[in-house]
Amino acid sequence: MMLDTFIVGAGPAGITAAVYAKRYNLTFEMLEKESIVGGKVNYPHWIENFIGYPDGIKGSSLVKVLERHLHVLGIQPIQGLCEKITEIQNGYEVTTSKGDTYQSKTIIIATGTVSKKLGIPGEEAFIGKGISTCATCDAPFFKNKTIAVVGGGDSALAETNYLSEFASKIYLIHRREEFRGVPSLVKALEENSSIQLYKGYLPVSIQGDQFVQSITIQNKQTNQQETLVVNGVFIFSGYTPKTDFIAFPLALDDQGFIKTDAEMKTSQPRVYAVGDIQSKALRQIVTATSDGAIAIHSIRNLLYA
Amino acid sequence: MMLDTFIVGAGPAGITAAVYAKRYNLTFEMLEKESIVGGKVNYPHWIENFIGYPDGIKGSSLVKVLERHLHVLGIQPIQGLCEKITEIQNGYEVTTSKGDTYQSKTIIIATGTVSKKLGIPGEEAFIGKGISTCATCDAPFFKNKTIAVVGGGDSALAETNYLSEFASKIYLIHRREEFRGVPSLVKALEENSSIQLYKGYLPVSIQGDQFVQSITIQNKQTNQQETLVVNGVFIFSGYTPKTDFIAFPLALDDQGFIKTDAEMKTSQPRVYAVGDIQSKALRQIVTATSDGAIAIHSIRNLLYA
Repeated sequence: MMLDTFIVGAGPAGITAAVYAKRYNLTFEMLEKESIVGGKVNYPHWIENFIGYPDGIKGSSLVKVLERHLHVLGIQPIQGLCEKITEIQNGYEVTTSKGDTYQSKTIIIATGTVSKKLGIPGEEAFIGKGISTCATCDAPFFKNKTIAVVGGGDSALAETNYLSEFASKIYLIHRREEFRGVPSLVKALEENSSIQLYKGYLPVSIQGDQFVQSITIQNKQTNQQETLVVNGVFIFSGYTPKTDFIAFPLALDDQGFIKTDAEMKTSQPRVYAVGDIQSKALRQIVTATSDGAIAIHSIRNLLYA
Repeated sequence: MMLDTFIVGAGPAGITAAVYAKRYNLTFEMLEKESIVGGKVNYPHWIENFIGYPDGIKGSSLVKVLERHLHVLGIQPIQGLCEKITEIQNGYEVTTSKGDTYQSKTIIIATGTVSKKLGIPGEEAFIGKGISTCATCDAPFFKNKTIAVVGGGDSALAETNYLSEFASKIYLIHRREEFRGVPSLVKALEENSSIQLYKGYLPVSIQGDQFVQSITIQNKQTNQQETLVVNGVFIFSGYTPKTDFIAFPLALDDQGFIKTDAEMKTSQPRVYAVGDIQSKALRQIVTATSDGAIAIHSIRNLLYA
């Protein structure tokens, strides 16, 4: 069967696409690599600026709300990784990591981004052994421990504040001399006595035995190195797109995000990109949901208007 | 005082802009012409596809949620109509219908749209006397009465279904031969025995004494006219933008909506447009909230990056 559309990824963008696809009676499937939907909504401990939740909501609770929307509409995501998308006659074929294939007239790429690697010795070896990229997932393991946080963007600052409710001591390592994040977040950090700021420092290596034991950092101006004894390292060094599963050329921006027009169309006919993987100025849940709705509207116009 | 931004309109787009402006510590004011915020969210009886409310939510309840978000953040909209926006040194001046003026470095136009007039005899005379453009507001007045609905878009269809819970008989007058709305809505209408469809008909005039008594319609093919005895007429004939309060040229599309780029910038420096007044493919609450967030992000980058 040739589907109307195939949605790759079940974060807020993909889920909104599915909700609108159902509303418009389109035939579709949605593929999600994780066992849980919601994408990076699973990561933040607390979400304050999502419209509809004026008093804030836990990331994990918002994921349950998204799950419920799928459930109410009878939408069941397929679990699996997208191995490959290839062009076929009048559409595309998606191959999943389980070897299943799906044919669809259109494709919505909603795969989001993956955490950037620091590319330093010890990083690969200690993932899951003291190195984490998700405070919500792993903060409780570091109760009354000492940790390092690497990063300085908005999510790094918010998550550091949250981690300070668990860890007794946090070294925040940021490559710039100043934080360019939301002023209220920066202020909260600076006033928090359990957080020690290392501004203008780069991480050099992470050491340990079975588990992380220390991180070595370097002052960017003096090149002097320092080794901090820690029980864990949280890395929030941004996110990067991953598009290597797409077996045809797509116009990307210079950071590798997929370019689209206002209707979410990519450079490839009948292929749409929504959410964080799209080249855009702002990546938020509200922007992702908007993208998903617009993509389905475009596809409906293409196929049935 | 020169504000960072001035938001004209407190619908979902304007409110999201305000929420993000607060988060980014920008100085701003928000102007709303109605005594209640939420814009057209006040209109639909029931909203099914807003992400965050999987089981649906009443329009009036979602307005309360939006109000609460403003309240939690200490944002108090100014009540009044935007009379005029003029260019001044390094910014803009907004004059309200109360004669107050505000100076701001940037402007966010979030005024939405107004209901289109049919332009037929009797329309002006009976507004509020049997003619309504808001089912949620006025449906209860037509319990066990006979009404006409003019329109055939998605919101007309949804509101007709809702009105059928009150009115005993509904004539749905649609200028086209087919409904192009959401298939599930069309199906519900066709299966509803209290709704009589007049497809391919135009409204000609509305008659009455103190109150609406009848509507005359004309078959587009035969030109034959017919007068239907009704107690009320609901008009859902679409929405139109209104930009005459802006005292400088702005690039508009051929329907009069304001053109913007992906960062919500209009053709006028430091003037942004968000929500339904913007030239765009899809007008939904999720698209409006996204616009509002993006506009503030752009303004923050312009003023403080």
